[in-house]
Amino acid sequence: MQTVSLKLLTIIAEDELESRLVRDLKELGTRGYTVAKVRGEGAHGLRGSEWEGENVRIETLVDPTLAERIAEHIAARYFERFAVIVYLTPAEVLRGGKFGKGP
Amino acid sequence: MQTVSLKLLTIIAEDELESRLVRDLKELGTRGYTVAKVRGEGAHGLRGSEWEGENVRIETLVDPTLAERIAEHIAARYFERFAVIVYLTPAEVLRGGKFGKGP
Amino acid sequence: MQTVSLKLLTIIAEDELESRLVRDLKELGTRGYTVAKVRGEGAHGLRGSEWEGENVRIETLVDPTLAERIAEHIAARYFERFAVIVYLTPAEVLRGGKFGKGP
Repeated sequence: MQTVSLKLLTIIAEDELESRLVRDLKELGTRGYTVAKVRGEGAHGLRGSEWEGENVRIETLVDPTLAERIAEHIAARYFERFAVIVYLTPAEVLRGGKFGKGP
Repeated sequence: MQTVSLKLLTIIAEDELESRLVRDLKELGTRGYTVAKVRGEGAHGLRGSEWEGENVRIETLVDPTLAERIAEHIAARYFERFAVIVYLTPAEVLRGGKFGKGP
Repeated sequence: MQTVSLKLLTIIAEDELESRLVRDLKELGTRGYTVAKVRGEGAHGLRGSEWEGENVRIETLVDPTLAERIAEHIAARYFERFAVIVYLTPAEVLRGGKFGKGP
């Protein structure tokens, strides 16, 4: 089994931010993503306001450098005004030519 | 990129347990969660009975101590009678004031 | 808290592959799985063709040996012709008799 160590970057955000976040991900260089609707409830980071309702979970598999670039972009653009959560989990991705120079 | 190491605690359960589990999470001190519908099939832990159908996946980002407290609570209250799965994955959460003393 | 270290194996695939993939998982020995609909966009591995649309995310908790067996099976059977992504994340699963010899 040949795998490559990447990061699964997960974004939880209000669903109205989906198209902006997806556009950001593409511009920053991700090669794929998935989006799922979730319901949620939580406390909004910098302002402490509450949110509850429809959210999206956007996931993308990226190398650690790109993960950092995306995280910093989202923090700078969204954290002050929106309830956005970003986290990284380690992922061993099975190689098939998609995430590297070839299979 | 400033991150804090937390645990992503995931609960897979029959969907009728959702409101009870969410109430438990709040009482135990979580500050946010997401819920998504999933379909599933599996073997029920202690009794070995089968389940199949609509389930919920509840996710929450918590520190390791709270993760342990939630896990023990769920094991004690649900494992004997319900098909509930709980697992923890490591998560590096981007800081924005939500999971700590400030940004 | 008694846990066992397993792998969360995630498959992202075109939704028409769901029943085949689930059958494969069962034949290979998994004891449970969940399926969720996701939307997605990406580049197809070996052929480089693009995919976009409805996908499924199939998740199963398995020991590392079975994870490897599933991954190799999917790579051999699907990677050349379909847009399928497989990745593994570490998961500490709360014990309740389901993933081992007993609680």
